[in-house]
Amino acid sequence: MSGIKETIEKIKPLDPEILAKAQDKLDNLTKPPGSLGRLEELAKQMAGITGSLEPPVRPALIATFAADHGVVKDGVSAFPQEVTAQMVLNIINGGAGVNVLARHAGADVWVVDVGVAHDFGPVEGLIDRKLAPGTESMLRGPAMSMELAEKSVQVGIDLAQEAVAKGYSALGTGEMGIGNTTPASAIAALYSGLPAEKVTGRGTGLDDGGLAAKVRVIERALEVNKPNKDDPLDVLAKVGGLEIGAICGLCLGGAAAHVPVVVDGFISTAGALLAVKMCPGAADYLVSAHRSVEIGHTAMLREMGLNPLMDLDFRLGEGTGAAIGLSLVEAAVKIMTEMATFASAGVTDKQE
Amino acid sequence: MSGIKETIEKIKPLDPEILAKAQDKLDNLTKPPGSLGRLEELAKQMAGITGSLEPPVRPALIATFAADHGVVKDGVSAFPQEVTAQMVLNIINGGAGVNVLARHAGADVWVVDVGVAHDFGPVEGLIDRKLAPGTESMLRGPAMSMELAEKSVQVGIDLAQEAVAKGYSALGTGEMGIGNTTPASAIAALYSGLPAEKVTGRGTGLDDGGLAAKVRVIERALEVNKPNKDDPLDVLAKVGGLEIGAICGLCLGGAAAHVPVVVDGFISTAGALLAVKMCPGAADYLVSAHRSVEIGHTAMLREMGLNPLMDLDFRLGEGTGAAIGLSLVEAAVKIMTEMATFASAGVTDKQE
Repeated sequence: MSGIKETIEKIKPLDPEILAKAQDKLDNLTKPPGSLGRLEELAKQMAGITGSLEPPVRPALIATFAADHGVVKDGVSAFPQEVTAQMVLNIINGGAGVNVLARHAGADVWVVDVGVAHDFGPVEGLIDRKLAPGTESMLRGPAMSMELAEKSVQVGIDLAQEAVAKGYSALGTGEMGIGNTTPASAIAALYSGLPAEKVTGRGTGLDDGGLAAKVRVIERALEVNKPNKDDPLDVLAKVGGLEIGAICGLCLGGAAAHVPVVVDGFISTAGALLAVKMCPGAADYLVSAHRSVEIGHTAMLREMGLNPLMDLDFRLGEGTGAAIGLSLVEAAVKIMTEMATFASAGVTDKQE
Repeated sequence: MSGIKETIEKIKPLDPEILAKAQDKLDNLTKPPGSLGRLEELAKQMAGITGSLEPPVRPALIATFAADHGVVKDGVSAFPQEVTAQMVLNIINGGAGVNVLARHAGADVWVVDVGVAHDFGPVEGLIDRKLAPGTESMLRGPAMSMELAEKSVQVGIDLAQEAVAKGYSALGTGEMGIGNTTPASAIAALYSGLPAEKVTGRGTGLDDGGLAAKVRVIERALEVNKPNKDDPLDVLAKVGGLEIGAICGLCLGGAAAHVPVVVDGFISTAGALLAVKMCPGAADYLVSAHRSVEIGHTAMLREMGLNPLMDLDFRLGEGTGAAIGLSLVEAAVKIMTEMATFASAGVTDKQE
């Protein structure tokens, strides 16, 4: 398995030659050039990522990383912490939103315990990579040590490598962790430079008072910890989460393996943003699936130059948006590989 | 087969009782209430349309209506008229964008000749409902007679009834007709009250000069014909098209049969708008798949109170957006029918 530094060194820019060939191929299909908009851009990106004009993007896997957050004790969530473990079991049993949408999209789901505050014992279908029973509260110091932060990123890198070794050709990110919009908002505030109130939303359903308290927690956590935005691992350790670190690693590991990574919503984007801050070139391998209802999402996407594919008002996480995104990635590739050309179909091209 | 008036009389409001039951069902699934956004709204709508908490939305069919436009002689398109017939054959052969995306979505495609200016002879897979070899130019008088306009709507109604009789549970609209953004823009200008230049786009790829000429054609056609916006059939006859009439009919026929109709892009929306002007209650049965690049699209959607599911920068038509929309409709229904409840999964509900 490669470490973080080695993984980053393997991430290369997309090949301009294959991008040009993909554009040429798309422009010869029986449609006005560019008329399938975002799907054409996506098809071209997949060609660049995979180095192929018939980009393999199936089978696809969503990795849903689960972890708990010490900051939940400080009252930042509408749901109690025990729900993280309960939802992990629900996902393993196939009953959660991500299961339904992944089945619809023809993608598999792996559930990875990076740091749930619950002893599952042996459970079939759970990938046990627990590093700690959750983080500490970032309100009173760093959420975790630098060592733990590095290990959480490594979990994601290793997962990406294992998935690719098992034959997966496209990855999606997902997460489950009660309280995890709080670290994601802290990361969004730090990198966007916006005040916490501009990047903090209601999560699973806080009322006005709960939202105001959550904003104060985030402001305080940033003051107490003073994360160094030039050191993404420092940010992850101080105001991040174990699943956010793993998502960061999955993005790096996917990019290093020339495999597209479809990024789910708000929390996943916080992980992806840390990956892009560690290695700006990783952004070329990422696809933002959808724009979350969480107000800090757009600020983070802007930092990475990513434009989400859809705006379906999702705010569930788990990888639900990534599932729909993976379906669009497959559709885009089929456009490039299955449509007739003007020549093959005997259709007259645009008048000159 | 029912006529237009009889069909409209069959269109009933969605049942508030089933809508309430669907909302209740959605709120008990293992997710924060409303956190799957547009998919939850869509699931509820499907329950209301079908009267079932397990709404059947498969098999699904996209009806792609093809017709030509006399106004093409006045230089409103980047592609020559012969492309309509060529693309009809391309769709029959499975090589067009709509075929690829319909296969991806698991939907069938029917290609219906309502008025192509080409004698196909017998072609397997083509549904021949040709009413005329295209319309007249709306620049010099009505595009068609009132009788022909009525017949074109009837083609769509009949098609919807046939599809439902064959077991289809969801319909999508599509069209192929070189020049047909011109009548769609005329309809958009008329009903939005906006000047033609605010609702007219580049279609398949006009340059600045071509766009300016197209705007003048639309302005002139509205002046010459003075369509009566209170009489949608008059509008269809004067500045419409045969495929636009058929799409209008498909929307009415679907609604009358309690079957959802997923409306594709700009031209399809012009047909759907005429249906809603004939029968405002039909809007409850429609789903707008995506927001077209064509600038007049949003104005028409606003008139109907519809909010498109996606914004993928499509401007191809054929039913390509409807295909993706039908996939989301199926995903939405699966959310409602396949997800675990808080009780069944043993997950703690929100803290009170």
